Amino acid sequence: MPKKILLKWLQEKDITIPGALLTQYKAMNLKEEEVVLILHLISISDKGNDFPTPFELAEVMTYSAEDCAGMLRRLIQKGLITINEGYSEEGIRFEKYCLDNFWEKLADTFLIADKRNEAKENQQDEI
Amino acid sequence: MPKKILLKWLQEKDITIPGALLTQYKAMNLKEEEVVLILHLISISDKGNDFPTPFELAEVMTYSAEDCAGMLRRLIQKGLITINEGYSEEGIRFEKYCLDNFWEKLADTFLIADKRNEAKENQQDEI
Amino acid sequence: MPKKILLKWLQEKDITIPGALLTQYKAMNLKEEEVVLILHLISISDKGNDFPTPFELAEVMTYSAEDCAGMLRRLIQKGLITINEGYSEEGIRFEKYCLDNFWEKLADTFLIADKRNEAKENQQDEI
Amino acid sequence: MPKKILLKWLQEKDITIPGALLTQYKAMNLKEEEVVLILHLISISDKGNDFPTPFELAEVMTYSAEDCAGMLRRLIQKGLITINEGYSEEGIRFEKYCLDNFWEKLADTFLIADKRNEAKENQQDEI
Repeated sequence: MPKKILLKWLQEKDITIPGALLTQYKAMNLKEEEVVLILHLISISDKGNDFPTPFELAEVMTYSAEDCAGMLRRLIQKGLITINEGYSEEGIRFEKYCLDNFWEKLADTFLIADKRNEAKENQQDEI
Repeated sequence: MPKKILLKWLQEKDITIPGALLTQYKAMNLKEEEVVLILHLISISDKGNDFPTPFELAEVMTYSAEDCAGMLRRLIQKGLITINEGYSEEGIRFEKYCLDNFWEKLADTFLIADKRNEAKENQQDEI
Repeated sequence: MPKKILLKWLQEKDITIPGALLTQYKAMNLKEEEVVLILHLISISDKGNDFPTPFELAEVMTYSAEDCAGMLRRLIQKGLITINEGYSEEGIRFEKYCLDNFWEKLADTFLIADKRNEAKENQQDEI
Repeated sequence: MPKKILLKWLQEKDITIPGALLTQYKAMNLKEEEVVLILHLISISDKGNDFPTPFELAEVMTYSAEDCAGMLRRLIQKGLITINEGYSEEGIRFEKYCLDNFWEKLADTFLIADKRNEAKENQQDEI
């Protein structure tokens, strides 16, 4: 029985987030609930579902399906999330959320913050 | 230069969160911003600061220091965060946030959810 | 350019291993190179290839393809790795390595070690 | 009881390794057992011990304390591990293993591999 529990815990799969995400999301104009929604997208995708509905998100978030749909829309409008469409070999059309732009924006923001810090340190060295 | 950036990225240290946290925080009566505050506590502690001030939290969150203080207070009142006090060998008093109760509550909530799921499955089997 | 590097680093995808794996692999009769081979299987699978050949493993390991094939064989004989076969919807047969038994054995070993530790502690309490 | 087990599992603390470590350790002239020894150093340090003895390492590795001491020595000679010495405020001398050089070498190796790959791709484009 304890073993079964451990295996179920493992099935929930850990997710790893770069520390930079926590220090930079504010500069990326993201709210905390949007960060958590993105973590849900990552986690749900790891478990095999690349295109969760607002209803599925609302089940694990403290927001309604309507709110979740609104957040998704805003993240798509900002260009952080894209929807990739395609056709499987059997001709079935599929859609999946793609976070490539999100990671790219995170890298951008991290590099800008780093440059600003360096500029500040140089200024202080000169004084 | 690219190397320096990679090393800085690594210094931000990844944090790993159990998938169960994402599926259970709602049942733990936590809001998304409280989950993110807890992730900040973990991340900041990993970088060596076990007792960040509300001002330090407000720097990386979209909330004011006052709001962060309020969230911390509520998490402490719920018994999820405790403040451990102690005296270092040099006689200096220190305080640190302790998340042991939080992990315990997460394990509890996960086990309750698991039991409920099993009961549901058994019911369905009987039909 | 630094951004491109960061994105490439991210594409390599982090993998997370339970601390218990490091404390228990010896009791599971695994050698260090077998642990690393399993980490490679996890990592390569995360990147989309569920059935790497011994040649692909030999590219990233300090062992020959023949040695890698031998290690895989032993892990399969021990029942830690299984090969799942199936047919895709287009009728194409596929094979993939499956680590479910490995995680189950890890959970088992962890629980046995835990019981032994408790027994030891109880004995010491009685003295 | 299942809860106690989950909490013990959590206490073992997950460790996260960059995918790049798995793809680059061979180019860094590291053997699999040396990679695992480094993972042990990271994990044991996360649990609060920054200077495990060869005996402590031998307990969790399939190598003797003598072998572990030899591996540590070689990693130090290669400059991947350094021993940082210091005096605590109470005047007590302490030593700790430091992996900064190891991460730096990993970043270096990753960048060199990346340049080589780009050169190859450019060559192929020209043909």
